[in-house]
Amino acid sequence: MVNWRPSYRLLKYSFFDSRTNLKFLNSSRTSTPGRAYNFGRTYELFQQDVCFQRRKFSTFLKGSGNGIMASLQNVDDNRCRIGYRNFASTASTTVRNQSFSVINSDDINYFKKILGESGVVQDEEKLDDANTDWMRKQKGSSKLMLQPKSTQEVSQILDYCNSRCLAVVPQGGNTGLVGGSVPVFDEASGILVCEAGCILENLISYLDNEGFIMPLDLGAKGSCQIGGNVSTNAGGLRLIRYGSLHGSVLGLEAVLANGTVLDMLGTLRKDNTGYDLKHLFIGSEGSLGIVTKVSILTPPKLASVNLAFLACKDYTSCQKVLSQAKRNLGEILSAFEFLDINAMDLVLKHLDGLRDPLPSSTHNFYILIETTGSMESHDKEKLEAFLLQVMESGLVTDGVLSQDINQASSFWRIREGIPEALMKAGAVYKYDLSLPPEKMYDLVVEMRGRLGTEANVVAYGHLGDGNLHLNISAQQYNDSILSKIEPFVYEWTSKQRGSISAEHGLGLMKANKIHYSKSAETVQLMASIKKLLDPKGILNPYKVLPTSLLSHS
Amino acid sequence: MVNWRPSYRLLKYSFFDSRTNLKFLNSSRTSTPGRAYNFGRTYELFQQDVCFQRRKFSTFLKGSGNGIMASLQNVDDNRCRIGYRNFASTASTTVRNQSFSVINSDDINYFKKILGESGVVQDEEKLDDANTDWMRKQKGSSKLMLQPKSTQEVSQILDYCNSRCLAVVPQGGNTGLVGGSVPVFDEASGILVCEAGCILENLISYLDNEGFIMPLDLGAKGSCQIGGNVSTNAGGLRLIRYGSLHGSVLGLEAVLANGTVLDMLGTLRKDNTGYDLKHLFIGSEGSLGIVTKVSILTPPKLASVNLAFLACKDYTSCQKVLSQAKRNLGEILSAFEFLDINAMDLVLKHLDGLRDPLPSSTHNFYILIETTGSMESHDKEKLEAFLLQVMESGLVTDGVLSQDINQASSFWRIREGIPEALMKAGAVYKYDLSLPPEKMYDLVVEMRGRLGTEANVVAYGHLGDGNLHLNISAQQYNDSILSKIEPFVYEWTSKQRGSISAEHGLGLMKANKIHYSKSAETVQLMASIKKLLDPKGILNPYKVLPTSLLSHS
Repeated sequence: MVNWRPSYRLLKYSFFDSRTNLKFLNSSRTSTPGRAYNFGRTYELFQQDVCFQRRKFSTFLKGSGNGIMASLQNVDDNRCRIGYRNFASTASTTVRNQSFSVINSDDINYFKKILGESGVVQDEEKLDDANTDWMRKQKGSSKLMLQPKSTQEVSQILDYCNSRCLAVVPQGGNTGLVGGSVPVFDEASGILVCEAGCILENLISYLDNEGFIMPLDLGAKGSCQIGGNVSTNAGGLRLIRYGSLHGSVLGLEAVLANGTVLDMLGTLRKDNTGYDLKHLFIGSEGSLGIVTKVSILTPPKLASVNLAFLACKDYTSCQKVLSQAKRNLGEILSAFEFLDINAMDLVLKHLDGLRDPLPSSTHNFYILIETTGSMESHDKEKLEAFLLQVMESGLVTDGVLSQDINQASSFWRIREGIPEALMKAGAVYKYDLSLPPEKMYDLVVEMRGRLGTEANVVAYGHLGDGNLHLNISAQQYNDSILSKIEPFVYEWTSKQRGSISAEHGLGLMKANKIHYSKSAETVQLMASIKKLLDPKGILNPYKVLPTSLLSHS
Repeated sequence: MVNWRPSYRLLKYSFFDSRTNLKFLNSSRTSTPGRAYNFGRTYELFQQDVCFQRRKFSTFLKGSGNGIMASLQNVDDNRCRIGYRNFASTASTTVRNQSFSVINSDDINYFKKILGESGVVQDEEKLDDANTDWMRKQKGSSKLMLQPKSTQEVSQILDYCNSRCLAVVPQGGNTGLVGGSVPVFDEASGILVCEAGCILENLISYLDNEGFIMPLDLGAKGSCQIGGNVSTNAGGLRLIRYGSLHGSVLGLEAVLANGTVLDMLGTLRKDNTGYDLKHLFIGSEGSLGIVTKVSILTPPKLASVNLAFLACKDYTSCQKVLSQAKRNLGEILSAFEFLDINAMDLVLKHLDGLRDPLPSSTHNFYILIETTGSMESHDKEKLEAFLLQVMESGLVTDGVLSQDINQASSFWRIREGIPEALMKAGAVYKYDLSLPPEKMYDLVVEMRGRLGTEANVVAYGHLGDGNLHLNISAQQYNDSILSKIEPFVYEWTSKQRGSISAEHGLGLMKANKIHYSKSAETVQLMASIKKLLDPKGILNPYKVLPTSLLSHS
């Protein structure tokens, strides 16, 4: 056991005032631009490489990304037009809930009494920073930001806000300004316990010293916080191997809207004592309570990582390669990503310094397969046998196995550079869908048929998890294109019993679209649970669930 | 995709009548007596071996087992003494909830109208069977058993019972009499969709033909149903590798107390659209709703399985071996079980045909390590290198690697024969605890200090999951011994933030002990959720949560 040291932690919350607007931040949902590689002795080099990559990408991450989930509103008194048409959805109007109070000087004095002067932020520049999402696309106008340092402070604040009916928007790692606390780790069990404010990358570094890894890895790791990751059920590239946070998170502490602290911070792999309520807080986007501490099962760090970049002539072949990879690489498979020719062309056109690893012929699909195991010779042997098999059977038409970190990084750069390339190409309508793998690409083909030459339909994603990132790139946003995409894309997904948000959540943008993926009875029960846990609806209002179902006033 | 064929399914429910008593059945929680082995070409032999073993064990499973969770009451009008002292807890008295109605002939006619004559069972012998738990220790006196064949029928029944305030006890595979339905399987994604009445072993066989396995395996697989497995969050031996059902179950369909059908039967690995409500029904022991369908992610079947039986001189060494196994066997580790010398002595004394695999010297602890991987040569090499390492470092004092199925079966027979040996040895007080691995054995030592020569303290369990099965064997049950065990064992576990029920659930026996593992605020929220979903409290009353918190009338 590592000793528990006094922790330094800042959790950030922004509040509604009379000109209240919405702010939901989720910086944890992006693709990963820099990945960790450890090819035996070259490990130190890799570390630098990742750092370099991360720095290189950090600017980009501020302006773009793959993980848009919710957006801010520009407020015009009580009526605000949500300007996310450029986020690929129809604009709508939200009316402020009149039951929410207006922040006054008494409130501010009370907060200062609890948090001290430094914990109550009214500085315009800092507020501006917190009011702006990392896409730099939307802007809120909250006039107060609170920075509690303990669960007790969070509880006191929420209790007060609940009694005053002040709406609250939980915010995790919107910026890298917030500090992370010191985690507690048990190397025998591999269980990490930490406060919600811990930055994911700090946890990754911390565990690296212990010989473990986090079961999730995201591009935003340098600024996102584990509390936000858990609240949004962040996905990422390790999901195919280690599953979702519903499986990895062993316990958590959450504060309810009325200030009640729920201690569910178990550190046990097995615990069948009553209902497993922690799952309510995983992925509910801060709307049921604020996660303040987390315990999580971490896998051991394994010595060998390999990456193959393959080409297939059709989508069916990609699926068959996935099936074979699951069987023959079974226990060492750690990523299975795909992109189509349109994505490849876009990346090669818009990003500097990239070259096609398989330039000699024309391919329609590309696959990245990563393996992670405990013995390099075994992994190489398995991977090479697998590659021989899929090439001899004609499923894979060409392929290359990375020989060093730089090559591996350049392969990943292609997959992870797609969002950046899309931004550079012009307007982009972004969709994050879960679909049955065998149907997934049918949607892409149909969409191309609908749009013709009006737009470029680009497809990529986590094929191993059935998660398609469908992006429609156009010269500029226009209603003609949008009307051909929506609601078609949602209806199509719904017919296949797919998810209209595989990993990005619903937030504000898709709150009213939940019925495409969830039955009326299920949504009704969600609303009942929201009302049970947050009767006044002060936590992250207008998000996740249709406002029509939440008659709080 | 395998085609969906018309399914034949019987779900069993038993009902309260005027002499209402409790019946909660969970046949899915036992240790696994027969395990599946596949040593290359000997596969066919293994199949027979398992069948033989299962048959051999079936009698034993009726009378004993490792997974006691809830028990039946012997009813004496409205007052019933719960006779589970021999299940290692103090007896208590439950008063029947007077708001429940008494079944009358109109009710029976209504049920017959919905289910037909054959779906309404009043035959004494059949009722007797359903009223008796598989421990044959407790007996209920329900006068009616219903066997709905579809979700719609379940919904109609519950709607009626709710309006009439008739209490309902969901029951899964109490016996092997109920049929299983035909599942739907998608080999590309490895996702299985099936009805709740499917018997686990049928699913295992079905998947075997497809080259996949279930992520859980239990001794009761021949009779337990997947709906019961999910409702009770059954653990089992594959948990260390594939995690709990909260990670594996992708979706489910459940019927609420008022008959509302919740369609949450998604087949997606990733779906962040609203609250993930399915987790409420996983492990809530039928008290929030009845699971009628399940979709579950299944891992590919891997070719190579190996088993090592090791000896250690002390518990600290066992822990270190676990750490090293996690690191060096990482991706192929599929079971890590332990037993102490008391458990070994007991098994050798009471079970016929068993011999100590490591007889040449005296050891204090034994470990079973199983690996499962895709390439036998690799797995053997990893396992042998690992064994060399732990033996050279002195952590392991002796060990043997099984050379064939028979040897592997005989190793497993030692671990899995412990409950049977305990039954033969006399009275036994059984506890199923999750504890921090480094503290786990301290409890055993303390318990020995408390009991002296009065009883034999036997320890074994899923060390890899931090799950201790603490069994106290005595000549006969007596209050002196019990008073030295309880509440000490619960208080000790609570101090370590452990779980008083790692995999067995709370049921009736531990409903009032939930506070040892869960905070008051959390239990209160569980009660609120129970009231929200089942306002009249008709589903599995008196169980899981303290009755005092559920003022339904």
